[in-house]
Amino acid sequence: MPATISTTRPGGRSARVRAAVHRAVVEFLAENPAEALTLPLIASRAGVHPTTLYRRWGSVAELMADVASSRFSGDIVVPDTGSLREDLRRWAADVATDLADPDVLALMRATIGSGPGGGCACTADRHAQLTAILDRERSRGGTAPETLHAADVLLGPLYYRAIFVGQPADPGWTAELVDTLLK
Amino acid sequence: MPATISTTRPGGRSARVRAAVHRAVVEFLAENPAEALTLPLIASRAGVHPTTLYRRWGSVAELMADVASSRFSGDIVVPDTGSLREDLRRWAADVATDLADPDVLALMRATIGSGPGGGCACTADRHAQLTAILDRERSRGGTAPETLHAADVLLGPLYYRAIFVGQPADPGWTAELVDTLLK
Repeated sequence: MPATISTTRPGGRSARVRAAVHRAVVEFLAENPAEALTLPLIASRAGVHPTTLYRRWGSVAELMADVASSRFSGDIVVPDTGSLREDLRRWAADVATDLADPDVLALMRATIGSGPGGGCACTADRHAQLTAILDRERSRGGTAPETLHAADVLLGPLYYRAIFVGQPADPGWTAELVDTLLK
Repeated sequence: MPATISTTRPGGRSARVRAAVHRAVVEFLAENPAEALTLPLIASRAGVHPTTLYRRWGSVAELMADVASSRFSGDIVVPDTGSLREDLRRWAADVATDLADPDVLALMRATIGSGPGGGCACTADRHAQLTAILDRERSRGGTAPETLHAADVLLGPLYYRAIFVGQPADPGWTAELVDTLLK
């Protein structure tokens, strides 16, 4: 059974509100600059009372960080194929697919600088997934690179091409990144 | 004598206007969202007639692309030490220093999506510099990796850490990136 990174997934109404609010943010950012986003505007678009947003997220920054982390990575399943190389290849391909989504640019722009220390909230979950894959290999008795080094070699080029070069990743290339890391 | 990437550097008044306008853009973005930037506002801040900006840059997008490419890379001297490894180490260290500048975040945010094909105008000059370094090694009779691969291995992690992780690069780490590329 594939393991998933555990994220809080409250069921029922709470999950529906979160989904509606996240969708409203993504739609809003596709049409408007990030700076124009306010909690009342998102509440209205999502059909939710503004108080709900203030209680749940507190601020635009926290809402954006939540959207960014769940949009970019929260729903990516961490593969468990029994092989570190294959796990990383599948995961890198999933990341590449996610980065190819047209919504990504607006969300990236909106959340760069939103993370602790000035980074992007969009990377925390990615690093957690990577750590989970690498730790699992160690628990099998294998050796695995450090998370930060793996992020440099895999996420560095993936993000660089998607965001700065504007060139889509092809499957052969993402597999090569993994081979470079495990060489 | 160190080679430099040739960029148009008109002397005299024209160069002064360009410098004043670029400075005005950087200062404006440090205080305001990118979406608020207009050519008349920049003209006023730079003490230049708006017509000059319209004639020279045509649009906000072109001005931003010009600022991004010259700010991020136009003034980096391409090293020529006689050794590919040492050239790349020096160049990567210069890129890292540039990316550590606090102004960088605002300019990145403002110019992501500004390049051809949706990338960032900030990378075109970097790739030109990298190509110059790699071509020079070939002209010496040595072998050198392709530019795009070198960009993946060097610029990928450099940009990823600076923009998405918010972690400054240290000199030992940038040297390792070069060693990974030339391994």
